[in-house]
Amino acid sequence: MAHIVLSRDAFFNNFSSILQLVQDIQKIAIVLKDNAYGHGLMQMATLANECKIPYAFVKNLQEALQIAKLFETVSIFYPNFSLDLKDVHSLPKNIIFCIANLEILPKLPKHLKIELKINTGMNRNGISTDKLLEALHIIQEQQLHLVGVFTHNAFGDDLDCGFFLQQHCFGAIKEKTKEFCKNSKLKIPRFHSLSSSGALRVLEGDSFNETPDDLYRFGIEFYGYCCLNPILAKIPTLKPVASLYASKISSQKLKQFSRVGYSGMGVANEKIVSSYDIGYGDGIFRLRDSMELHSAEGCRILPPISMDCLSAESDLESICVFNDANIWANAFRTIPYEILVHLNPNIPRILQ
Amino acid sequence: MAHIVLSRDAFFNNFSSILQLVQDIQKIAIVLKDNAYGHGLMQMATLANECKIPYAFVKNLQEALQIAKLFETVSIFYPNFSLDLKDVHSLPKNIIFCIANLEILPKLPKHLKIELKINTGMNRNGISTDKLLEALHIIQEQQLHLVGVFTHNAFGDDLDCGFFLQQHCFGAIKEKTKEFCKNSKLKIPRFHSLSSSGALRVLEGDSFNETPDDLYRFGIEFYGYCCLNPILAKIPTLKPVASLYASKISSQKLKQFSRVGYSGMGVANEKIVSSYDIGYGDGIFRLRDSMELHSAEGCRILPPISMDCLSAESDLESICVFNDANIWANAFRTIPYEILVHLNPNIPRILQ
Repeated sequence: MAHIVLSRDAFFNNFSSILQLVQDIQKIAIVLKDNAYGHGLMQMATLANECKIPYAFVKNLQEALQIAKLFETVSIFYPNFSLDLKDVHSLPKNIIFCIANLEILPKLPKHLKIELKINTGMNRNGISTDKLLEALHIIQEQQLHLVGVFTHNAFGDDLDCGFFLQQHCFGAIKEKTKEFCKNSKLKIPRFHSLSSSGALRVLEGDSFNETPDDLYRFGIEFYGYCCLNPILAKIPTLKPVASLYASKISSQKLKQFSRVGYSGMGVANEKIVSSYDIGYGDGIFRLRDSMELHSAEGCRILPPISMDCLSAESDLESICVFNDANIWANAFRTIPYEILVHLNPNIPRILQ
Repeated sequence: MAHIVLSRDAFFNNFSSILQLVQDIQKIAIVLKDNAYGHGLMQMATLANECKIPYAFVKNLQEALQIAKLFETVSIFYPNFSLDLKDVHSLPKNIIFCIANLEILPKLPKHLKIELKINTGMNRNGISTDKLLEALHIIQEQQLHLVGVFTHNAFGDDLDCGFFLQQHCFGAIKEKTKEFCKNSKLKIPRFHSLSSSGALRVLEGDSFNETPDDLYRFGIEFYGYCCLNPILAKIPTLKPVASLYASKISSQKLKQFSRVGYSGMGVANEKIVSSYDIGYGDGIFRLRDSMELHSAEGCRILPPISMDCLSAESDLESICVFNDANIWANAFRTIPYEILVHLNPNIPRILQ
């Protein structure tokens, strides 16, 4: 049966790298959104809890409720306010709602814990910088509990000067917010702007880190990947946490050069070809045309992959479809995030 | 909140096309595997039941158990025998197990309902043609209940001569099976080999249909798509059942030509860009580089799509990301099946 093996050792290895970099565990948050980037929310949250990571970020309230007990705070990046606040008083007190637009602020109930998202140049979502003071005034009037002010740097992986422009912009946001809080006798919120790659480069010695953040949001690095341009910092030794396995459905003894699969697209070089119980219906990408990939054992996977199975030049009872999502990401000209997060949540995840 | 609207009208339209083609509802099976190709298993099974479709095919026992009450028979394409047969006597009596290899046959319990899958040239899975009689002997000895003998034609969509070779091969399988059954005084099983496109071309008048099948397995055509080369048959007027919607997270007022999203990859031609609450973490494909797509309203979607959101040149509160998966399939050089089946099962499906 197709399944994903999640390596505890790999997770702890990646955590060690992150802790060595940041030094202070109180500055580490784990991003567990989207089923922990496809790995399995509960499994990854449990490991993070064993590492005593204090803070987590998730996509929505459904995810937050599952893991609220395991962290000091759980912040929801994309709340659905029309649904989430219906029974707000019964929610765990450590859940924080991220606010990406000004219009929602006046509608929020008193004392709600929020983090304010500022658009510092990614231009995707968040409150524009010139509306910061307006937002802070509304927060004060509404007696909302401002836990954090944050942004998302779009250029963490890149040489692009946009990285520095956003950091500079967020520096000014910090100063304005602090000044407002001092004048209003409000507690200064936590500030954060960087995810895995951005954190790595500023903490590895990037000169542009004059007003360091209070928190770094590590996602992909916990799961064993780093997409940072290696010219920008020393890439730590990370280990992919997830390996995808599939089991044999049946074997075919074929003449050499037999055609296999839809449209006879695959041409078998070997005389034994077996089908395995994973396909693009499980969220892996559909190998096709003249594309070539190999299992971790080196068995050639034949295009095209079907909805429920793939054929490989192998007689093994089980194959490891991948233990490094970069191989599939390169084949499909995308990033390992997409390969991992598309894995169907119904595939069993086994922590080992 | 991102959601998928499922159109009853479209489903009934597609069913009408299929019924008009086949004429006899007792020859129609619906393929509901993989969450009904991503549409939602229960919703599609309910509509199929309203149409009085008698037979269904699913991927695994979990799917079969959910819909067993709605059909005369539900066949499982990819059973997991080590798990599924643990409590076989408590299973609904109308569940049928598809058998893709010879080795499993001697291990099955008496009277189990099975359909035997034969490899007639797709070379993916199934019992090889020269093992047919051996398989039938084991079935007789084990007192298994042979409900069907089937194959899968790999060339339904194509001009390729493989289509005819497989049909010819399956014709011989039918004859041999019938002869064996007559000699053994067994009931002759149902025979089926074709899915949507293959059924369309043989029923539309393809000359190679001398020994017609007892059943046709319609999948993608129910959901509104046909990938058949139009030279091969008149393509019926189908309507896509699923439309994907997303809601606005926030709007940004920008200078023209502002950069948007990771690596500043998107360049805005308009001054208002909004982000919407769907991303590649929900199973849509990651628009990137210089790719361009538009929402159904004509709003340009900017690359890159993020894990949880996309940016579009729009100020609408909600956009229809697509109402025809072919548009996304063409952009990503794949087939609509992959676009649809990757949609995360947690996105709410709303039947309208």
